[in-house]
Amino acid sequence: MKADSTVQRPSKKRVVIRVDPERRAWWKETMSNLLPEMEVFLWDEDSYCKEEINYAIVWTPPHGGLARLPNLECVFSVGAGVSHITDDPSYPWHIPIVRTVGPPLQQRMREYVALHVLRIHRRLPEIEAASKAREWKQFVEPVAGDVMVGIMGMGNLGTPTALTLRGLGYQVKGLSRRGRPVDGVEVYKRDDLPRFLNNLKILVVILPATRDTDNIINHRTIHLLPRGAWIIGAGRGTQISDSDLMNALDEGHLEGAVLDVFRQEPLPTNDPLWKHPKILITSHTASAIEPSVGGKIIADNLRAFMEGQEVPDLVDMTQGY
Amino acid sequence: MKADSTVQRPSKKRVVIRVDPERRAWWKETMSNLLPEMEVFLWDEDSYCKEEINYAIVWTPPHGGLARLPNLECVFSVGAGVSHITDDPSYPWHIPIVRTVGPPLQQRMREYVALHVLRIHRRLPEIEAASKAREWKQFVEPVAGDVMVGIMGMGNLGTPTALTLRGLGYQVKGLSRRGRPVDGVEVYKRDDLPRFLNNLKILVVILPATRDTDNIINHRTIHLLPRGAWIIGAGRGTQISDSDLMNALDEGHLEGAVLDVFRQEPLPTNDPLWKHPKILITSHTASAIEPSVGGKIIADNLRAFMEGQEVPDLVDMTQGY
Repeated sequence: MKADSTVQRPSKKRVVIRVDPERRAWWKETMSNLLPEMEVFLWDEDSYCKEEINYAIVWTPPHGGLARLPNLECVFSVGAGVSHITDDPSYPWHIPIVRTVGPPLQQRMREYVALHVLRIHRRLPEIEAASKAREWKQFVEPVAGDVMVGIMGMGNLGTPTALTLRGLGYQVKGLSRRGRPVDGVEVYKRDDLPRFLNNLKILVVILPATRDTDNIINHRTIHLLPRGAWIIGAGRGTQISDSDLMNALDEGHLEGAVLDVFRQEPLPTNDPLWKHPKILITSHTASAIEPSVGGKIIADNLRAFMEGQEVPDLVDMTQGY
Repeated sequence: MKADSTVQRPSKKRVVIRVDPERRAWWKETMSNLLPEMEVFLWDEDSYCKEEINYAIVWTPPHGGLARLPNLECVFSVGAGVSHITDDPSYPWHIPIVRTVGPPLQQRMREYVALHVLRIHRRLPEIEAASKAREWKQFVEPVAGDVMVGIMGMGNLGTPTALTLRGLGYQVKGLSRRGRPVDGVEVYKRDDLPRFLNNLKILVVILPATRDTDNIINHRTIHLLPRGAWIIGAGRGTQISDSDLMNALDEGHLEGAVLDVFRQEPLPTNDPLWKHPKILITSHTASAIEPSVGGKIIADNLRAFMEGQEVPDLVDMTQGY
């Protein structure tokens, strides 16, 4: 055996995982199986040196935690959003972040938005109430082609969602930073917000969380929507002003809302959003996927990053999403 | 003025309308406006001679009524089904019938089935219950690509519906008399019913009402579905055995049902279907359209028939649909 006095470098790349406590054993086993060429540790374990960690797979890491890993090469977010990582003021911004999206999450979001747009348009809450009350009641609404839906955020979740709604026959408008065109969808730039909002029956918010989008749905923008509109919130919980939303529902300007994301999750039991009769809470399930599917996407992204291949879900660190 | 001793023939074609009493004034006005070249009467008016009627636009005409119009050339059903006409034992079978379908009704059915398939698949009833109970509860289901939906009846409503579900990502099987192939959908013939049913999570019944399809969904066929399946009934009310359905729900073989059509409509207030906790009643709204849209389709069909043009929704009188 050859003697070597320099610091011993581990032969395998090392990964640390920081997820919900209930699921961490499962994550460790799954990622160890998916990445047999690496060593996998849990965040709170004592058995690794911070200096040896190359990759971190995280959900809501504690502030300062990632900055203490000096040889970190890349961070993988367990989810499509990354604000749970970048809201750490000490986040080392030179370290790239990869979001977890991929076809399964896009599929989930398409299903979720299609379901709730159809539910609103076809007046399912009223039909369910009539069924419970044993009342024969026939509602006739306009066909989908006469219903205007707006997708706020035409990224890799918003674009396939907009196309799915087109396929169902809806009229669809989109809003994105650059206003890049999408087939069959009228896409507006951010500064065209009033024109985007002015005739929507249903506004779907799938924006990423950035400083720009904080409280972007507020008293003023809600009142740019026509009376009787609905809001579906499936981006981040910071984008909608809860109190402005509830006021607009109470005064009848908005007819209803479906919310999937919140400032604090799980949404605290005493939060007034729970009690509002015109709000349906869907507990962050819009684009939920089976953990094994998410694990597979992360393993593929991690290996692609390591091998220098293109990683489409790499976050643009100048934009923060 | 030229004297003429023969029976006077009216110069205009004459149409009689038999619809719900509440809407008949509206129908008369609408059809008179849409068909200015004809004379339009209501069924119960005294101002027309039975001998002079050329066309009848009807919903549930009284038995024997159409047989008493000796110069009738064609009957137009206010709806996609025609059994409300052909179940009259005295119906004069040499008189052709035209159904009212067309793109708006197909669009409605696509919306309805997409909504209820998504609602079942994405477990909306449980999510709504959790929201009402203020419980943060995350459900993770398979993606649409792992959910098998079966469309029973691949006609001009079933086929576009099947394609819509494919577009949403579902696996789709179809059942039709001839088993005519449809892109991306495995279509079975009627005698292959067991193979069609064996792995469906959701069975959608959009069959026409014929003697063949009476009670086609019964104890035996329900138990060819896997445990935990759902049934959406949007064809005719005669196709599902209500008691077999409720038994299968009670014993847990079926998880739930959504019913749009019934043997008697409106469904009587004391019908046990109303009270069943696993059944959602949607009061024959699946492919409901605004009456003005229906009126327009009928006027177009009537004029096409009169001018000898092709009428795609002409009923095949040998099949009864």
